[in-house]
Amino acid sequence: NGHLPIEGRRKSCWYEEEIEDNLRWCFALNSILHTGSSQYQDIALLDTKPFGKALVIDGKLQSAETDEFIYHECLVHPALLQHPNPKTVFIMGGGEGSTAREILRHKTVDKVVMCDIDEEVVDFCKSHLDVNKEAFSSSRLQLIINDARAELEKSKECFDVIIGDLADPIEGGPCYQLYTKSFYESTVKPRLSEGGIFVTQAGPAGVFSHTEVFSCINNTLRQVFKYVVPYSAHIPSYADTWGWVMASDAPFTADAEELDIRTKQRIKGENRYLDGKTFASASTLCKAVRKSLAKETQVYTEGTARFIYGHGAVHK
Amino acid sequence: NGHLPIEGRRKSCWYEEEIEDNLRWCFALNSILHTGSSQYQDIALLDTKPFGKALVIDGKLQSAETDEFIYHECLVHPALLQHPNPKTVFIMGGGEGSTAREILRHKTVDKVVMCDIDEEVVDFCKSHLDVNKEAFSSSRLQLIINDARAELEKSKECFDVIIGDLADPIEGGPCYQLYTKSFYESTVKPRLSEGGIFVTQAGPAGVFSHTEVFSCINNTLRQVFKYVVPYSAHIPSYADTWGWVMASDAPFTADAEELDIRTKQRIKGENRYLDGKTFASASTLCKAVRKSLAKETQVYTEGTARFIYGHGAVHK
Amino acid sequence: NGHLPIEGRRKSCWYEEEIEDNLRWCFALNSILHTGSSQYQDIALLDTKPFGKALVIDGKLQSAETDEFIYHECLVHPALLQHPNPKTVFIMGGGEGSTAREILRHKTVDKVVMCDIDEEVVDFCKSHLDVNKEAFSSSRLQLIINDARAELEKSKECFDVIIGDLADPIEGGPCYQLYTKSFYESTVKPRLSEGGIFVTQAGPAGVFSHTEVFSCINNTLRQVFKYVVPYSAHIPSYADTWGWVMASDAPFTADAEELDIRTKQRIKGENRYLDGKTFASASTLCKAVRKSLAKETQVYTEGTARFIYGHGAVHK
Amino acid sequence: NGHLPIEGRRKSCWYEEEIEDNLRWCFALNSILHTGSSQYQDIALLDTKPFGKALVIDGKLQSAETDEFIYHECLVHPALLQHPNPKTVFIMGGGEGSTAREILRHKTVDKVVMCDIDEEVVDFCKSHLDVNKEAFSSSRLQLIINDARAELEKSKECFDVIIGDLADPIEGGPCYQLYTKSFYESTVKPRLSEGGIFVTQAGPAGVFSHTEVFSCINNTLRQVFKYVVPYSAHIPSYADTWGWVMASDAPFTADAEELDIRTKQRIKGENRYLDGKTFASASTLCKAVRKSLAKETQVYTEGTARFIYGHGAVHK
Repeated sequence: NGHLPIEGRRKSCWYEEEIEDNLRWCFALNSILHTGSSQYQDIALLDTKPFGKALVIDGKLQSAETDEFIYHECLVHPALLQHPNPKTVFIMGGGEGSTAREILRHKTVDKVVMCDIDEEVVDFCKSHLDVNKEAFSSSRLQLIINDARAELEKSKECFDVIIGDLADPIEGGPCYQLYTKSFYESTVKPRLSEGGIFVTQAGPAGVFSHTEVFSCINNTLRQVFKYVVPYSAHIPSYADTWGWVMASDAPFTADAEELDIRTKQRIKGENRYLDGKTFASASTLCKAVRKSLAKETQVYTEGTARFIYGHGAVHK
Repeated sequence: NGHLPIEGRRKSCWYEEEIEDNLRWCFALNSILHTGSSQYQDIALLDTKPFGKALVIDGKLQSAETDEFIYHECLVHPALLQHPNPKTVFIMGGGEGSTAREILRHKTVDKVVMCDIDEEVVDFCKSHLDVNKEAFSSSRLQLIINDARAELEKSKECFDVIIGDLADPIEGGPCYQLYTKSFYESTVKPRLSEGGIFVTQAGPAGVFSHTEVFSCINNTLRQVFKYVVPYSAHIPSYADTWGWVMASDAPFTADAEELDIRTKQRIKGENRYLDGKTFASASTLCKAVRKSLAKETQVYTEGTARFIYGHGAVHK
Repeated sequence: NGHLPIEGRRKSCWYEEEIEDNLRWCFALNSILHTGSSQYQDIALLDTKPFGKALVIDGKLQSAETDEFIYHECLVHPALLQHPNPKTVFIMGGGEGSTAREILRHKTVDKVVMCDIDEEVVDFCKSHLDVNKEAFSSSRLQLIINDARAELEKSKECFDVIIGDLADPIEGGPCYQLYTKSFYESTVKPRLSEGGIFVTQAGPAGVFSHTEVFSCINNTLRQVFKYVVPYSAHIPSYADTWGWVMASDAPFTADAEELDIRTKQRIKGENRYLDGKTFASASTLCKAVRKSLAKETQVYTEGTARFIYGHGAVHK
Repeated sequence: NGHLPIEGRRKSCWYEEEIEDNLRWCFALNSILHTGSSQYQDIALLDTKPFGKALVIDGKLQSAETDEFIYHECLVHPALLQHPNPKTVFIMGGGEGSTAREILRHKTVDKVVMCDIDEEVVDFCKSHLDVNKEAFSSSRLQLIINDARAELEKSKECFDVIIGDLADPIEGGPCYQLYTKSFYESTVKPRLSEGGIFVTQAGPAGVFSHTEVFSCINNTLRQVFKYVVPYSAHIPSYADTWGWVMASDAPFTADAEELDIRTKQRIKGENRYLDGKTFASASTLCKAVRKSLAKETQVYTEGTARFIYGHGAVHK
């Protein structure tokens, strides 16, 4: 028709996310590959120009093809490498499959239990994320569809490493209870073997954003475990630095050099992001964040909570 | 992963177009249905929330499912109804198929020649635009892949109605030559039968935008034909009022009432937008545009041209 | 610092409005001239590239410098010209001042009462909209800060023309009660002089958008007045066709020619948009809208209402 | 007028930047405080909701009120603290004034020469950036309007520290020549005192973005100086990790503890971002970037260059 075609204007389709109330992050789109929904949440797989395939749940980017390795290497390897000989691992959440994939690279691991509440999301990822196909079909992986808390409460088994790969602790959100002092004390700790390690994703950890939940998760874990290590890394597709906290009643003894040795011995294939030096750097926070974490006094309990933008209402 | 899902934020994907240099128009997207490209242009079929399926060529919306009927009823029916007995129609461009579809609703019409330069676009529309499937397969339609000018120049046939369904006349653009005085005089007019009518889409016709090309196309046709009628209609998905110009050496004699009678006699099915009163209204332009058209002195010739935003470089 | 400057990327600042749920309209900005807020609403005066100075209330464009003449000429002149000799006019709302400005161009008018509820908005417009400075200081203008309904109810005066320049009738919105059958019957009609005319803005009137409120306002007025004329015009900065409805118990006798004669006799200066032909065209709606209006059965009463996107909660 | 006001939609005005070709970053705006232009570039001071006042040059964010301290502490303090007793400092560029401000906090410093080519930008920042008012009026600051290269070439003075606070080295860009091997060898090095240190901002240093210019600047400096230290930090308003490179022919001997001691002795007021541990972390790059830097072979010479998005054409 008469509408004028214009040469060179090709970036017509965009994915757009409000990272915070007044801050938007937009990726040019190649295509919308798959969309679906479960009883808990909406899910989409987008093909983005800057970050490849992107998994989006309820309008929030979960993970992007080009840089999810940063998140998942940081979540999994420090804890598994600090442990002298991890054989069993429990994942709270993790339905995307990438956390299991990284764990299964560890030759010492016999058994991974992945417990996610949302079967449709798990099925969606199983079908569409080629990079995790092998992990999903591993005989060492046991997949359970259930609330991670209920599952851990009824379980009698102990694990060498327990990993929290859940949505952030928002008051009224689905995962809040999985970040409280009482949950860590009464449910997680009893399910760790002697010398066991707990690690959780801990939300944004930037110079400003670390006060949303990172400092509180860190402080809550300090109430329950003897040794607690917060660390962080910048993830380009998140437009922020992200945080994790690792905790145990046994000391973390492996230094950078020892981490590199264990990496070579135990992990199949090569890490792209994490090695001993990277972890040393990641666990040395900048002055502003370090001081802020030191001063944090709030503890997540059933009664208290902190708000974060968005008031998430679904379970990851 | 740890990224926070937010309830209710579902409008993540958007189609965005710069209608003018400082003006953007954005539709929420359901999906990107098909994409392709030809030697001339890029093409996409999007599923948009506000306007249904949208055909986008080189980053410019061509036509949207929910309101393309306005454009195509306005382009086709006034000329065919003013003609006493239209049997043969030639379409310059029109690869989308909707113009042919509207023409084929006229029972008097024996033969429609549609001449578009871009075979891939025609094939794309044939495959994906269900609403035009019937038209594309009509035995009364003859489809030619060629430059409309070259085709008309070599043709010896005459047509009762010739319809211009081309991109706007941009200097240096692919269609500029199909809007000049010499083209109308030497190529179009000789191919019209006695009493034949020429009609063309004529670009934006809003209070401000009509000076881009509408007033000039109208003035150019006034140099060549005895009777010239500019008219316009607001098309929601274009975010503007659109214009068409109808021209002939025979007077346009049918009034609103007669148009309604002929519509009933000749057109299969019912129009949604156009009837006698609508055309009376559409061809009575507002004071600002009327005055501006009256004062226009420019004529499109091979030597002169007027710029429009975008400098289109492809053929529709 | 080290961030890379890029030549030619100057359109960094944008005004953005969600016209409907899935539809965005964005203007490049030169500057944000003034911002303020009242007890009822937020207000801003922006300098936009495509439409000049734009008055924005609660995130919705109210009026733009380059094309507000279309809205205000259409709101004011048809009613005042159809009236044989309008001396007194009452404006419900109209705090921007442009409606008063257009009325005051009529030499027959002795007195304009403008009744707006929001003093801060009125003061803001008085200070910042140069184009209305003269109108605001006219001795023929009486400005009242009050709810228009309360003011009309307590008034004992009658007016030749009453003009509704209010926000759309949204259930639960501030202006809903100023569009009901009972308000028109018991409050407006008794305040019209013999042969008096009521006219109101009537929301979007596009091929699709006219069902939001336009068709209902028209139908409600049909229940109360003998003669009702809906009409519409495309306003570029609104990205839509807009509607008005004029109503009276006296017939509208002036045809296009007579409107032009009265315009010359009564109105100082020249209209840009409206003349007799323009009004003839504007009041001849397209087939789709005409059929839809004819079939409309809903009437605004205190008990019924129709929802529109946005659920406005403030008074204009 | 009749347009519907909507409660709660307040984020109407946005600053938008294309960080890369397919990536957009948008801040909600409070206001556009000042705009201006020089012979070289356009300049604006915006008041943004997420990052406070933001200085934008030619459509690219230069520095934001809430987090510019990260960039400027990282640019200035490592070099000045590693130097045993810095008395004189030369800034190439730095017109914003923040680099001078940080340098002037050092009690050892007698003289700061700031050499920026764009007088209008310097004047704009002097007038509008309150946080740098004191620095601009310091008697220890000598401000020169000139090309930094020409100034250094004609200078006979030597400096303890030379700081590059310039736009990235884009081929054809205004600053490219200030990043070449020959410039470092023939112009910078001769102007460093015995034991002097050169440090430069070095563009984005993220897991992906470090290949744009960071790895090349680092490699170029390795050709010229004996000791070269690349380091990085995430800057929220840049939506990326940023890089700097420090170089000298004297070894960098101060460890984290010594840096903290010197900070206390020499710097007035307290750093917010940088201390000894932070620098240790910042200068320990992640595995991916470390490997990539090690493998980099390209050197900036007058003849070679690397393209970066945007082709900057102006001098900072």
